Amino acid sequence: MVKKARVKALVLDKLNNAPVVLLEIDGTKKILPIWIGACEASVIAMILEENEFERPLTHDLMLNVIEGLEAKINNVIINKIENNTFYAKVILKDLTVPPDEEEQYIEFDARPSDCIILALKTNSPIYVSNEIVDSHTIEFEGENFESEDDEFKKFVENLDINEFRKRLKKGKESDDEPEN
Amino acid sequence: MVKKARVKALVLDKLNNAPVVLLEIDGTKKILPIWIGACEASVIAMILEENEFERPLTHDLMLNVIEGLEAKINNVIINKIENNTFYAKVILKDLTVPPDEEEQYIEFDARPSDCIILALKTNSPIYVSNEIVDSHTIEFEGENFESEDDEFKKFVENLDINEFRKRLKKGKESDDEPEN
Repeated sequence: MVKKARVKALVLDKLNNAPVVLLEIDGTKKILPIWIGACEASVIAMILEENEFERPLTHDLMLNVIEGLEAKINNVIINKIENNTFYAKVILKDLTVPPDEEEQYIEFDARPSDCIILALKTNSPIYVSNEIVDSHTIEFEGENFESEDDEFKKFVENLDINEFRKRLKKGKESDDEPEN
Repeated sequence: MVKKARVKALVLDKLNNAPVVLLEIDGTKKILPIWIGACEASVIAMILEENEFERPLTHDLMLNVIEGLEAKINNVIINKIENNTFYAKVILKDLTVPPDEEEQYIEFDARPSDCIILALKTNSPIYVSNEIVDSHTIEFEGENFESEDDEFKKFVENLDINEFRKRLKKGKESDDEPEN
């Protein structure tokens, strides 16, 4: 089972100088942080700031290729975590296959950052597995959970992403215990 | 008409702190420098250094998608320059179309850096239009034009890429004159 999510903000983990995407889990006040690379972060920042680049960037080329081969992005899913690494999938719909046939959907192993970029560029849904929602999100405890709202902005500004990381790691370690 | 090319080296334009790919034009001692972005340069460096990354990088995902949609990279071509920007194309072969039909080949507008990365990763040919070879290459004047050779290494080290840029720009300006 999965939950729908959307990009809430792009912040910086100052201690590690690493960008972090915050996903909001729909219908909740839960936030899933995903550490990503600087190059992927700059692409996400361009999309969020609605900055257009004159020439096709890598993901634009990928989307043009997908369209040219008669397919489209159906959705993306962040589906598991292993060794502190998030795994994700891009699900394509092959438009040359008749609808309702199972082969219409093709899945590709991918990093969450590529998935989020492709979803943002095509306005496709982002899903997160329930397991990850349960074990790796942090609850926003304020009233006004709007990106533009001062209370949320303050929450993001004050978010001690390293403290958060520690808590998650701790969480993960105890999650792992039953398996050991 | 086009010439075949290969990646000769990745160097740094120190004044602008910008990476430059040097393409060697096959059967000549001509070098075509292309200024690229830092993110694309780091991908090219990983390929040249045979560094494998555990998770699929963006171009790996693109190649997996192309394969999943039953196509492959046929070749790439750096085909024109406009306003000091190189334009390129990725040519895919659609494997679902019977051979020898023209529709088997699909072209996509792309940046040279993406084209070079896709070509390196699939061992596909890189072409450069004769027009660009004639107007935008520099001649290596030494004897031993091998990447591993000391003489070439020295040439690359001593390559004043800014002087080179100025020469090219000058060249370009006079090329433009007949049009004015």
